Amino acid sequence: MKVKESNKSINIISSIKTSVASAQLTQKPYDVGLILSTKETVASAVFTKNKIKAAPVLYDMELLKSNTDIRAVVVNSGNANACNSNGFEAIESITNNLSKKLNIDKRQIFVASTGIIGEDLPYEKINSSLDTLINSLGEHSGEFAKSIMTTDTYPKEYALECSFFGTTFGIGGVAKGAGMIHPNMGTMLGFITTDINISKDMLDRALQHAVNHSFNRISVDGDTSTNDTVFIMSTKEAKNDEITDDSEIYRFFEDNLTHLCTHLAKMIVKDGEGATKLAEVIVVGAESPNDANNIARSVANSLLVKTAIFGQDPNWGRIVDAIGYADANIHPDKLKVYIGDFPVFERGKKSNTKKGLLDEYMKNSEIKILIDIGIGTSSYNMWFSDISYDYVKINAEYHT
Amino acid sequence: MKVKESNKSINIISSIKTSVASAQLTQKPYDVGLILSTKETVASAVFTKNKIKAAPVLYDMELLKSNTDIRAVVVNSGNANACNSNGFEAIESITNNLSKKLNIDKRQIFVASTGIIGEDLPYEKINSSLDTLINSLGEHSGEFAKSIMTTDTYPKEYALECSFFGTTFGIGGVAKGAGMIHPNMGTMLGFITTDINISKDMLDRALQHAVNHSFNRISVDGDTSTNDTVFIMSTKEAKNDEITDDSEIYRFFEDNLTHLCTHLAKMIVKDGEGATKLAEVIVVGAESPNDANNIARSVANSLLVKTAIFGQDPNWGRIVDAIGYADANIHPDKLKVYIGDFPVFERGKKSNTKKGLLDEYMKNSEIKILIDIGIGTSSYNMWFSDISYDYVKINAEYHT
Repeated sequence: MKVKESNKSINIISSIKTSVASAQLTQKPYDVGLILSTKETVASAVFTKNKIKAAPVLYDMELLKSNTDIRAVVVNSGNANACNSNGFEAIESITNNLSKKLNIDKRQIFVASTGIIGEDLPYEKINSSLDTLINSLGEHSGEFAKSIMTTDTYPKEYALECSFFGTTFGIGGVAKGAGMIHPNMGTMLGFITTDINISKDMLDRALQHAVNHSFNRISVDGDTSTNDTVFIMSTKEAKNDEITDDSEIYRFFEDNLTHLCTHLAKMIVKDGEGATKLAEVIVVGAESPNDANNIARSVANSLLVKTAIFGQDPNWGRIVDAIGYADANIHPDKLKVYIGDFPVFERGKKSNTKKGLLDEYMKNSEIKILIDIGIGTSSYNMWFSDISYDYVKINAEYHT
Repeated sequence: MKVKESNKSINIISSIKTSVASAQLTQKPYDVGLILSTKETVASAVFTKNKIKAAPVLYDMELLKSNTDIRAVVVNSGNANACNSNGFEAIESITNNLSKKLNIDKRQIFVASTGIIGEDLPYEKINSSLDTLINSLGEHSGEFAKSIMTTDTYPKEYALECSFFGTTFGIGGVAKGAGMIHPNMGTMLGFITTDINISKDMLDRALQHAVNHSFNRISVDGDTSTNDTVFIMSTKEAKNDEITDDSEIYRFFEDNLTHLCTHLAKMIVKDGEGATKLAEVIVVGAESPNDANNIARSVANSLLVKTAIFGQDPNWGRIVDAIGYADANIHPDKLKVYIGDFPVFERGKKSNTKKGLLDEYMKNSEIKILIDIGIGTSSYNMWFSDISYDYVKINAEYHT
């Protein structure tokens, strides 16, 4: 079993092509992107849990119920196609046009949007860009990653070449995030390609597992959005027997997909609006998985913890406070909290760690907080960013 | 029935005296305060729901179980007496000394602390200030309100003279808040005095109702603290028959106590760290009280909503988003959202309100958001502050 990083991103699968164009929805050089598979695929996706969903999310959820051989993915930034009056009309028009031009069924097209909410999507502009998209298909994953960015400051791509006892397969992904990133996926898009030979059911399972352990464990500001989507498509070209159950190779694929998603998720946190540090909170010894989850979320979403990390202050009091108001069982006398390797709180009291050591540790760009609840065996972890002046600036100055 | 505002704060009850002193716990002129009743009282309190509670909270909770005739309240700022090694030792020492000097039972002394967590309380400093406190007792509620401040920028006091068919009584209160203010009471202290003749049970009930409708409905940053306490004491000197049930005069008292607490709670939000605006979210038409509560909290705690309000942007998309991820039943097609009197979202779509009108409205110092869920009869409201650059500055630069 071998795994190697690749710089080919979603073009790691040679029968999957990418392209970008400008539909003049934004000031960016590109604001629409296309992924096209020249081969049959099996596809899966995980969507936002927000009860108010954008038109593309509602459309795709229906689409994947009846069709999983997705050949094309068209994505725009600048307009979320959410809470407006022409959401489905826009999707109908774009998928009709694109299917004719590509000579595929319109139900083989997956759609995604990100950007401002509540404005009608000027879909004729997107239609006008389709020829450019189709004519420029090739290995343009880097531009594709840029075309889907909103307040992101850099594109997010990653790929792995995997080898399992002679069978080789690839997994590549691009993502965008930055604002509104939250455990349950805030304005976050991810597109993953692979060629592993796998059944629809097992692909669903692997993606759900990977998302639960990566994108759903990140927090920038605690909000989730109407548009969040993580999509995966496989051309099934790898030489393995089709994965249909929880086999060794399935585990190997699931692990690597999770690793890829975690890498992308951490890139999103690092690029959180105004973020200066990447923090991780690890909860162990909780009474139940739900308790571990609630405690981790409470700490990762605490504004006071986030601002303390920005201020490089080892303020364990704010951590203990956030643990205390989480919806979970705790016994203050059994609780231990560490910042980095240093104990800061034990048995209801401050630990004896020298403040100088903690102050020095807080200057790191990556900060770890370990919380041992001491009453059970459940654990959970989350990655989160600090909150800086720039977070407020970006979000206060962003105008509708 | 008549109600008149008074400027006497907690000294509205003439047998209740106040004083302040410096125990040199802070750089402030005063950092300890004393409230003394020269008459017998009945007392009640509501405490933080945080599972990690400061020593004074644990002490007072026990105290009020067996004794409700509280004569003295001693409060310090600068040190929370929480998560340290000498919390109860400190309280024992202070209450022993104070009880001897005042010639009262030590179990007639209520204690409260606010400030930094995790440091031992230098209680000898407080003991050294007791003579000054006792010798200067008088009408010093204004100084008392200042002595309990931490990051507050102004003292919070309010009082009402009430008259119910010939019976007159007073209610006065002081509070502190500013940082970490949250629905379930973040580092928030409130001290209320009255002289209404009321049983312990009915006083408990009135205080719980008042806190539920005021201090528990405010949010600055979503965190709750280890020390939060709202305390009330009555000298029972008013000429009414003792209130022992849900009578007309009880309702009158409860209403006015709630009004007083709401006034203080809104002062706390307005003085939230770095706050520039006071916002209120009102949820109506929810399926259950719990749903209404969850939706209001989700909006009031949304960083994106808070920063939009700071930026004076009528960003209804962020409001709708926060409604959508609240743990509550909603139907996007029945949902209506108003900013001020202006509809901004109806039946799944943006409303036609002119952006210019909304932009103008957002310049107000008080902002109202009305959310009609449209599927039930339950309602809830919350007051919250915006989040500004200064919030991040104060909380990042505050060092342990």
